[in-house]
Amino acid sequence: MTDVIGIQAVRAVLRDAPARGRTLYLQQGRRDARVNELIGLARAAGVRYQSVESAWFKRRVAEGAHQGVLLECHELAVADEKALSAAWSSFGSQPLILVLDGVTDPRNFGACLRTAAAAGVDAVVVPKRNSAPLSAVALKTAQGGAENLLIVAVSNLSRCLKQLQRKGVWVIGADGEAEQDYQHMDARGPLALVMGSEGRGLRRLTRENCDLLVKIPMSGNVSSLNVSVASGVLLFEILRQRGAD
Amino acid sequence: MTDVIGIQAVRAVLRDAPARGRTLYLQQGRRDARVNELIGLARAAGVRYQSVESAWFKRRVAEGAHQGVLLECHELAVADEKALSAAWSSFGSQPLILVLDGVTDPRNFGACLRTAAAAGVDAVVVPKRNSAPLSAVALKTAQGGAENLLIVAVSNLSRCLKQLQRKGVWVIGADGEAEQDYQHMDARGPLALVMGSEGRGLRRLTRENCDLLVKIPMSGNVSSLNVSVASGVLLFEILRQRGAD
Repeated sequence: MTDVIGIQAVRAVLRDAPARGRTLYLQQGRRDARVNELIGLARAAGVRYQSVESAWFKRRVAEGAHQGVLLECHELAVADEKALSAAWSSFGSQPLILVLDGVTDPRNFGACLRTAAAAGVDAVVVPKRNSAPLSAVALKTAQGGAENLLIVAVSNLSRCLKQLQRKGVWVIGADGEAEQDYQHMDARGPLALVMGSEGRGLRRLTRENCDLLVKIPMSGNVSSLNVSVASGVLLFEILRQRGAD
Repeated sequence: MTDVIGIQAVRAVLRDAPARGRTLYLQQGRRDARVNELIGLARAAGVRYQSVESAWFKRRVAEGAHQGVLLECHELAVADEKALSAAWSSFGSQPLILVLDGVTDPRNFGACLRTAAAAGVDAVVVPKRNSAPLSAVALKTAQGGAENLLIVAVSNLSRCLKQLQRKGVWVIGADGEAEQDYQHMDARGPLALVMGSEGRGLRRLTRENCDLLVKIPMSGNVSSLNVSVASGVLLFEILRQRGAD
């Protein structure tokens, strides 16, 4: 079971993936238009709801601002490589995959999922180990962005990248030390964009599996962007080049 | 006085703005290479340091992961409109200003500052009211990005935008309801990019003061990007168009 907290994240699940909802918990005394909307959505989805005291939230929620609402959910389906292969034909002529290699901070992970969803990527691939779990904090930060994403957890990321390459996917890694600026990449055709961890960047083996490494040129003393911001800059440049709007 | 917490944020202040440091507090028993580096920087900067118990951190730090380090700082200089005018001639031929209208969440504010610094904006303008303070959480999220930024707090944002327009600045507002896609904006010449709050977007008066409104086209059910991600996408598109690298 997973807990989704916060008005906006709970609303997104009840609206976009109501079958995931089990029970909606509402803090006593907090009844406003936004909470009433959640109750309406829960009723429509056949999700039961109940009021609980604020102490209940203190016990249940370890981290993150719950805003007096918590939706107990069935696990979000995280797919495996077979599901990625099976879905491939539905991705259109220019699949776009975001690969997150070692994003272990749940806030960053959630922010990346939200960005990926806004950019309309076909799938997000993460290694089974060395990734943030789809925790309440990650899902809240994703603001519902995770609900309709195909999230694929793979046991061997290098092997997965090689399989993608055999499908004709061009694998582009983001690396602060790269020589090529991102604007000069060619974003046409099937693409996988690989983002590394905030502190250490891409792992060596992952880097070696990339067809191309690109950097985002930075100004002044700032050595890196937040990984969700860098993902946004790169994904929307890919969309811009493809003329998608 | 302001508290800066976390290894990376403290390191950035000691390295880039050592004159701001007053006292470095270190948690007893936590001495590793990264902490030793901070001590070295503090010594070089003439900032005194002392060990304190973990209970001291519990009392002092209300929010955010301090990692056993806290740097008590002189206030970050927030400038006023006069300082913005005085600095104008140093901005080069194509000034780039980021205006944050109503970004009240400290994490989002800090992430925007980090993005603005990486994009090399000349100044960040915020309204005096209706903005997140430069709190410890904001400064930690900024990862040192705030240290070398000219941050200008104005009492009347509309008046400030009009003053910028009289200097020949083109004011572009980000608005999810805009008709024009951001890729089609013309980013040459002096620019101010105006970002609204996460929940409500631009205020009406701010929107009316913009010369152009642009949107980032989104996919699927996701209605908005995090404000720091949207700032990154727009600022780096401006840099891309200007051919800056």
